[in-house]
Amino acid sequence: MTGIKILKIGGSVLTDKARLESARFEVVERIAAEIAGAGEGLILVHGAGSFGHIHAKNFGLVEMFSPEGVLQTHRSVVRLNDLVVESLTGAGSNPVPVHPLSSTILKDGRIDLMEIGPVVEMVNRGLLPVLHGDVAMDRVKGAGIVSGDQLVSHLARALKPEIVGLGTAVDGVIHNGELLAEVRRSDLSKIGSDLGPSAGVDVTGGMRGKLQELLDLADDGVSSTIFNAEKPGMIERALRGERAGTFVEGRA
Amino acid sequence: MTGIKILKIGGSVLTDKARLESARFEVVERIAAEIAGAGEGLILVHGAGSFGHIHAKNFGLVEMFSPEGVLQTHRSVVRLNDLVVESLTGAGSNPVPVHPLSSTILKDGRIDLMEIGPVVEMVNRGLLPVLHGDVAMDRVKGAGIVSGDQLVSHLARALKPEIVGLGTAVDGVIHNGELLAEVRRSDLSKIGSDLGPSAGVDVTGGMRGKLQELLDLADDGVSSTIFNAEKPGMIERALRGERAGTFVEGRA
Repeated sequence: MTGIKILKIGGSVLTDKARLESARFEVVERIAAEIAGAGEGLILVHGAGSFGHIHAKNFGLVEMFSPEGVLQTHRSVVRLNDLVVESLTGAGSNPVPVHPLSSTILKDGRIDLMEIGPVVEMVNRGLLPVLHGDVAMDRVKGAGIVSGDQLVSHLARALKPEIVGLGTAVDGVIHNGELLAEVRRSDLSKIGSDLGPSAGVDVTGGMRGKLQELLDLADDGVSSTIFNAEKPGMIERALRGERAGTFVEGRA
Repeated sequence: MTGIKILKIGGSVLTDKARLESARFEVVERIAAEIAGAGEGLILVHGAGSFGHIHAKNFGLVEMFSPEGVLQTHRSVVRLNDLVVESLTGAGSNPVPVHPLSSTILKDGRIDLMEIGPVVEMVNRGLLPVLHGDVAMDRVKGAGIVSGDQLVSHLARALKPEIVGLGTAVDGVIHNGELLAEVRRSDLSKIGSDLGPSAGVDVTGGMRGKLQELLDLADDGVSSTIFNAEKPGMIERALRGERAGTFVEGRA
């Protein structure tokens, strides 16, 4: 679909990942303002950060089905989603919350089914759908975590967007202290497990999980950029298609 | 699917429909306790009442697409959904909120697409999915209202449940001051537009809309019961399959 842009903002940008449910309000507000300036055609996905990851970990949700864990983890990430939607409204966007738990089924941790029709309708009507990392039902495990990164790659695979940008709390993929301007699958064995920092509690795989997700997406022909969303102005640059951070090139 | 029961509780039961966002807390609590006693296999749908209907009306949402109307109407019904989920948790159920806006697309006011897989997975795992009348994207009008009644008939058509019960604030379909124990499509022309009271603001068609929905469902072979959920004990009776109120018989 032409004209669509998918932007992910990591939970480590929006929250203090080490402290339960602590949003970084000033960052959320700044990012909302940057997004409001980005125009139409955008789908936003945000991570859970300390809303969700800590709950999921406490309930052992990844290892063991827990009805209370499903509800409490979901409600926690929805609280962050509410904050993001509120800030976007204040900044002049027309956000609409979209909750993966309502539309998605996993199979052993991977998206097996996700209804994205409503998201597309929203974008077509000038709304800004705001999805988030969430808990979702899992055909194998009962329930599991669907990360914002997995949502991004699923949406991007289906919609073939113009731009896929992943805003994180670091400059991109760091290897031996250096920012990699570009990563291809063939680089992965070279750089091994040293992929730079990933702060706080994360049940979804950190930078390695993110890169794996984006390399799989690249195999399907969709390029993406990992950039530093803590630096003002970077969202705008990423959404314009500028190379800023690490570029994961799609193989057409 | 055997063993599934679908219960709808009307917005006029859970809220004071004449006053903006006024939940009837003691009723919500009592109903939550009755539902918690009903065992597994249940899907709950609740109406919006004064959460949603009044917003939708104020924004003219049915006639005219409004980005702010979509968000504000949705957030309002989600506030009621939160209350219901909270009460159900307190009563010992394992509720999970399911938001139609995330999973459903309308076409000129009717459900064109709805992903119900997550709802089925929830029931299979012993959770209690809690859906609600909601705003949803509409391929023709931009956005529209999907009533709890329409959700019930859509789910029932797909799942062929054992029981479909619709708890309202009246005893059932009243004609000439008398409760009709049974209604078939052939009765509709006889009873005309006098179908008993429907209090407060309702953008989804009142008792006539409900009956039309259930007669369509009956045509597809699924029976349902309209009963008075304001009377304690009636939910249990309806879920046991007792004839209480007005029975709309499915033609096999």
